[in-house]
Amino acid sequence: MTTIPSVPVPLSGERFCVVYCLAAKDEAEAREKARDICLEQTVEFPDDLVPDGDIRDHILGCIESFERRDAHHFETVISYAVETSGFELTQLLNVVFGNSSIKPGIRVERLDLPDSLLHAFKGPRFGRDGLRAWLNASHRPLLCTALKPMGLPPKELAYLAYQCALGGIDIVKDDHGLADQSFSPFTERVQRCAEAVAQANRETGLKRIYMPNVTGPASRVVEHALFAKQAGAGGLLFSPGLAGLNLMQQLADDDRVGLPIMTHPAWQGSFVTGPDNGISHYALFGQIARLAGADASIFPNYGGRFSFSREDCQSIAEGTTAPMARIKSIFPAPGGGMSLARVPEMLDLYGRDVIFLIGGGLHRQGPNLVENCRHFHQLVAER
Amino acid sequence: MTTIPSVPVPLSGERFCVVYCLAAKDEAEAREKARDICLEQTVEFPDDLVPDGDIRDHILGCIESFERRDAHHFETVISYAVETSGFELTQLLNVVFGNSSIKPGIRVERLDLPDSLLHAFKGPRFGRDGLRAWLNASHRPLLCTALKPMGLPPKELAYLAYQCALGGIDIVKDDHGLADQSFSPFTERVQRCAEAVAQANRETGLKRIYMPNVTGPASRVVEHALFAKQAGAGGLLFSPGLAGLNLMQQLADDDRVGLPIMTHPAWQGSFVTGPDNGISHYALFGQIARLAGADASIFPNYGGRFSFSREDCQSIAEGTTAPMARIKSIFPAPGGGMSLARVPEMLDLYGRDVIFLIGGGLHRQGPNLVENCRHFHQLVAER
Repeated sequence: MTTIPSVPVPLSGERFCVVYCLAAKDEAEAREKARDICLEQTVEFPDDLVPDGDIRDHILGCIESFERRDAHHFETVISYAVETSGFELTQLLNVVFGNSSIKPGIRVERLDLPDSLLHAFKGPRFGRDGLRAWLNASHRPLLCTALKPMGLPPKELAYLAYQCALGGIDIVKDDHGLADQSFSPFTERVQRCAEAVAQANRETGLKRIYMPNVTGPASRVVEHALFAKQAGAGGLLFSPGLAGLNLMQQLADDDRVGLPIMTHPAWQGSFVTGPDNGISHYALFGQIARLAGADASIFPNYGGRFSFSREDCQSIAEGTTAPMARIKSIFPAPGGGMSLARVPEMLDLYGRDVIFLIGGGLHRQGPNLVENCRHFHQLVAER
Repeated sequence: MTTIPSVPVPLSGERFCVVYCLAAKDEAEAREKARDICLEQTVEFPDDLVPDGDIRDHILGCIESFERRDAHHFETVISYAVETSGFELTQLLNVVFGNSSIKPGIRVERLDLPDSLLHAFKGPRFGRDGLRAWLNASHRPLLCTALKPMGLPPKELAYLAYQCALGGIDIVKDDHGLADQSFSPFTERVQRCAEAVAQANRETGLKRIYMPNVTGPASRVVEHALFAKQAGAGGLLFSPGLAGLNLMQQLADDDRVGLPIMTHPAWQGSFVTGPDNGISHYALFGQIARLAGADASIFPNYGGRFSFSREDCQSIAEGTTAPMARIKSIFPAPGGGMSLARVPEMLDLYGRDVIFLIGGGLHRQGPNLVENCRHFHQLVAER
């Protein structure tokens, strides 16, 4: 065996923690998994090759606690030196779950990050308070809809946007399937839809915003965002699973952009569909979305056409506002097959700090889209 | 109900196909899932709201085939108009699996893309032949190791790099946990390690390369890649799960960079750990990695400390070389806890078009790292 040198590693002593849920046949297997995470997420070296000294004592993950949850599930808290994260998002996530994502029976439940690490993140530019101020809506729940179906040309989408804004929908966003397609080119769509919402605002005297989807090629995302801003868009839709959490963070941090960002969960589902592997709803759609600069986090509401439970959704709402130093709270934005009839029940769960995202359901109430939107607005605002 | 206008949508008639595996209690449920995918991945609208005409006839996904695999699994092929992809990676992936990723029991098995769509992708810059030429290794399997453990300073990592290159390891890469940390700053590490490998090359007259990890903040990845090239790095390590497939594609397509790219699977594991949800090994580590410009795709070998099966690994190898128009074949790079003793067995499975990635195992053979590397090289080259 070769000898890996034992070197001093200058570290502050500050550590961050990750809560993992481990699925295992028994406690011994779970303890083995916990020890394995300590190695896998840091040195990625067999234990007997790890040199003694600072690397073994401080770079390795450290099991801070371990307890049984039920017959086959165990919870462990593992800490890591803050310096392992390089104080940036991709490497932080790598330490949290890089290689362990490839092992069955390991699920990230929660991040517990000290101020010294959180200080490296600007987080959401707007957050809840900022988005409320941006929309002149200080107390009530916010309303959102998506322009669709894919296939409509910009002119038709813009007319839908006009009607929705006129009817009182605060955020009129692109469906996440609207990209830069020949039948709906990005620039034409953004110009037409932004102008349509501006026209509605001139008529109502209110402020509704259009949020185009800027998910796309890495080299064009910032360019698209700047174009959207210049065209009058009031925010941006971004799918970090498809286009990268790090690119979303760049958009959020860029002062030239300076628009609220709403995330869409496309492509991220596989992290939460397995009960024993992946990332908790709380961490993925709450904590991590905030770290990466989202101002609102879209997720499928329970009881719609997706499979999230009421508890999953509640945990996301908690993750959007759990204390994280100066990282702002953001809006949970439940959607996905919801109907107007469910608004009261959802208000009970989420309270007023929520964005209701309703797509197809908005077309069902009656033949007039503007009236349908007004009805939706009244349902929510009257509470 | 409102009326969504029926509009003509100018389309070429060309379609791409996705093979999905559906888990369901019976055929009726599986057929319902297939129909649901057709809507969810395109118009994201309830069926009764979809206007007749081109949107219903051509924008909607179309079930091309449906058959039972076993009692609870069904295979369906669904086609989509190529124009829905916007002819770019993020939107293509969105149509393939955006919202469906959030639904249990849906797994992407294979992409079948026509030349008209593949033509929009440059794919790997080097591919198998290009990387062989780059390394002056026309026939034999290639050897790779990772610099670690995290915590070592650049000088110590560089000495390891020197020894590995001297011993005949073709690709000496950063461990994917080496980022831009205070104990191993990116620029100092890259300069020292590139120089160490260059020194070994001067002594041997051979060409070995150093591949630094450029996964990181979106705004710095290209800058880091250009720095690495200028410092003499011979390739780049990138973790697309953490930093984005689209950003990797940008790196691959950028003529100023022009270096081979090797992907690391960190953070991507959750796509393949659930048997009934996610993306197949073949598609994720083979087809999609190629579309996004990787020249080699690292994955955990079967029988190591991860859970991939022999069949999973074989399917990845197939995905790295399956016909995709002008998109080049790339190298499968199995690693993860493998030992020298397994080389013969792996040669039987992968043949000579493989990169053997061996990390910790390289330190076990004997006390002299250079000799251990030479032994590894002989084991492989003599076949």
